[in-house]
Amino acid sequence: MRTGLKTGQNCVIGQDVRIGEGVTLGHNCIIEDHVTLGAGCYVDSNTLIRSGVTLGEDSLIGANCILGEYGMDFCLDRKPHEHPLRIGARALIRSGSILYGGSVIGEHFQTGHQVTIREGTEIGSHVSVGTLSDIQGNCRLGNHVRLHSNVHIGQLSQVDDFVWIYPYVVLTNDPTPPSSEFAGVHVHPFAIVATGAVVMPGLDIGQDSLVGAGAIVTRSVRPYAVAVGNPAREVSDVRKVRNRFTGEPAYPWREHFGRYMPWEETGFAAWYASLDLEEKEARGIARLEE
Amino acid sequence: MRTGLKTGQNCVIGQDVRIGEGVTLGHNCIIEDHVTLGAGCYVDSNTLIRSGVTLGEDSLIGANCILGEYGMDFCLDRKPHEHPLRIGARALIRSGSILYGGSVIGEHFQTGHQVTIREGTEIGSHVSVGTLSDIQGNCRLGNHVRLHSNVHIGQLSQVDDFVWIYPYVVLTNDPTPPSSEFAGVHVHPFAIVATGAVVMPGLDIGQDSLVGAGAIVTRSVRPYAVAVGNPAREVSDVRKVRNRFTGEPAYPWREHFGRYMPWEETGFAAWYASLDLEEKEARGIARLEE
Amino acid sequence: MRTGLKTGQNCVIGQDVRIGEGVTLGHNCIIEDHVTLGAGCYVDSNTLIRSGVTLGEDSLIGANCILGEYGMDFCLDRKPHEHPLRIGARALIRSGSILYGGSVIGEHFQTGHQVTIREGTEIGSHVSVGTLSDIQGNCRLGNHVRLHSNVHIGQLSQVDDFVWIYPYVVLTNDPTPPSSEFAGVHVHPFAIVATGAVVMPGLDIGQDSLVGAGAIVTRSVRPYAVAVGNPAREVSDVRKVRNRFTGEPAYPWREHFGRYMPWEETGFAAWYASLDLEEKEARGIARLEE
Repeated sequence: MRTGLKTGQNCVIGQDVRIGEGVTLGHNCIIEDHVTLGAGCYVDSNTLIRSGVTLGEDSLIGANCILGEYGMDFCLDRKPHEHPLRIGARALIRSGSILYGGSVIGEHFQTGHQVTIREGTEIGSHVSVGTLSDIQGNCRLGNHVRLHSNVHIGQLSQVDDFVWIYPYVVLTNDPTPPSSEFAGVHVHPFAIVATGAVVMPGLDIGQDSLVGAGAIVTRSVRPYAVAVGNPAREVSDVRKVRNRFTGEPAYPWREHFGRYMPWEETGFAAWYASLDLEEKEARGIARLEE
Repeated sequence: MRTGLKTGQNCVIGQDVRIGEGVTLGHNCIIEDHVTLGAGCYVDSNTLIRSGVTLGEDSLIGANCILGEYGMDFCLDRKPHEHPLRIGARALIRSGSILYGGSVIGEHFQTGHQVTIREGTEIGSHVSVGTLSDIQGNCRLGNHVRLHSNVHIGQLSQVDDFVWIYPYVVLTNDPTPPSSEFAGVHVHPFAIVATGAVVMPGLDIGQDSLVGAGAIVTRSVRPYAVAVGNPAREVSDVRKVRNRFTGEPAYPWREHFGRYMPWEETGFAAWYASLDLEEKEARGIARLEE
Repeated sequence: MRTGLKTGQNCVIGQDVRIGEGVTLGHNCIIEDHVTLGAGCYVDSNTLIRSGVTLGEDSLIGANCILGEYGMDFCLDRKPHEHPLRIGARALIRSGSILYGGSVIGEHFQTGHQVTIREGTEIGSHVSVGTLSDIQGNCRLGNHVRLHSNVHIGQLSQVDDFVWIYPYVVLTNDPTPPSSEFAGVHVHPFAIVATGAVVMPGLDIGQDSLVGAGAIVTRSVRPYAVAVGNPAREVSDVRKVRNRFTGEPAYPWREHFGRYMPWEETGFAAWYASLDLEEKEARGIARLEE
């Protein structure tokens, strides 16, 4: 099980730890009981992996991270509770990040630094979460979602496939704070929420819409709409927006941009044509014709 | 003094450390000289508690925290200075948080992750400070104050009892930046400052008022007013706002919401009736009739 | 080379490490290969200094920091790459900060806590970067720049000498997100960008201008202009703004404020008069007469 395990100094490894081939630990790592580290994982110095974490193969965990962080039940009784955290293969979790137990994350997951992801979070594959972002738990992110730095995803949010969210955006969830009745925001596929926008509870951000920087969104935004201002108003259609440098239409962005996306090599149209209906529906992108 | 102390590996414990019964330390903890850990405290791995910290009983300090962080005097001369940090009983300080020496914090204090609290901060009891919040020091928070994630409290701020502040709110303090003449914001009891609002220096946010999400507050907000926009204008009275789900009036919130509050069991009216005038005045809530 | 090195417990020191006189390491420090620590440096506990870091004399690095953090190339191949990080003398980098390899930083650099500075960043001397600020790399900060807490500097930004940027400001860089054509913001000398402002890609923030709190800046701001609102409009001239307490003109601030500045002792006029034209041009302040 521990073929070729390389560890730095002062590491502490618990009971029933399954370590694949070719795993490397830095200095001062703490691996608690019942942890699984897939083959080829690299865990950098000072990182703490708590009980119940399963890390897919070839993942890299930066220094000073905490995986499988305690929930409130531990804080109350200080006893172990079973909240597994499963992270898919080829994750890259940068230093200083804290991920709670009780979430499931797909392959090719990537974070910046000092990220917090709380319990009850479902994250698809190929998702990126930027430095200082704070995912509050009990929410759902699809596949190929990209959150830039310092994004705040409130509880009950749903973020669909191919959504881009930029720095200092907040998805809120309490219509009359403080209260006990929460309503999450739903951001639909291909939508873009630009820097510093705040979305009020329970709203829909429509497919392919663009919420402008600093928009305070108090009504749902329709598909393909451009919404800006405080309060936000729909002022245009994304298909009228042109790239400042090329003069070409900039949206729908999928037709012009493929980095990090499954159509990076082929272009969107060919990739889309290769999907069957079931796959399109699973991604929520069966109807792109508007 | 150290009855039943349990420690992980590689801990370093200084001189004149007072440790109550049943204290647990994780791995790699550093407890410097002249620290007091009350009975039943739990200090998780990699946490550093500096000289002069007193931690009330049954407190839980997460991993990778720093309590009693150095002030500028240490940075200048690298010599020990006496800046005690006193934290009341039953604190829950989550991993990655940094609290300076030179502050006093009441019982049942709770933080999220990666919180920073600088020197000269006075915090009452039952206060909660969310992940990534940054309290800049020389300010005062009352009792039962709740700061959500990523709130920035500028120096000289005063936040009264029962105030709620939501993500990415900033209380500023310099009217003509940069300058040396600061003026703190004063948030009065029961006020709510919603996500992303910025409050200009020296303003009053009136009792029971509601500052809307994204409001840029350039004038004081009157009691019970609803202020929204950039710049913010008073557009309504909180007593006209209804809960979206129940249709009932949502404010004053104390009449409908008690979670985390001393009236959680009894309702507000009964709790309030049980206070004598002195207690009401101490909390700044002697006159609620408007 | 290691005259008088003091180290705490469990430190790990690599090969070819050059340590000047009178250096102190805390506990659990990790100093990798090919690191240079200038005389009188103090590195606090749990801090990790990676290969290729050069730290100027008398610098203080707080606890839990990472200097010389890995770039994407390491994440991909897990092999050492040469990305030196050079930090000038008398730095003060507070606990929890992460600085990548591949940047050059001048003397008297100062950070708050949990700061992130990515690769390809050029920073002049006497620069201060507040708690939680996130400098995304491939950008340039001049001398005597002051970033307050939680400032986000996008890639390709240029921030000139004597600029002040306040909390939660974002300098963006993608005009039609997501795209591959970035355009950085250029903030000119003496400009002030107040709390929560967002500056759109490629814009100029003119010399001595003041961007108000919460401004969403969609057009370049002219020298000496005051721009406020969403979207921001130029509403005044900074020379008309008065200090609220003294009633005196507050701007250009250099005439009234010298803290942290090279004219702290002499006043601006005398200091400016002492510069020759070449020095003024190097700082971009050869023409202040407007």
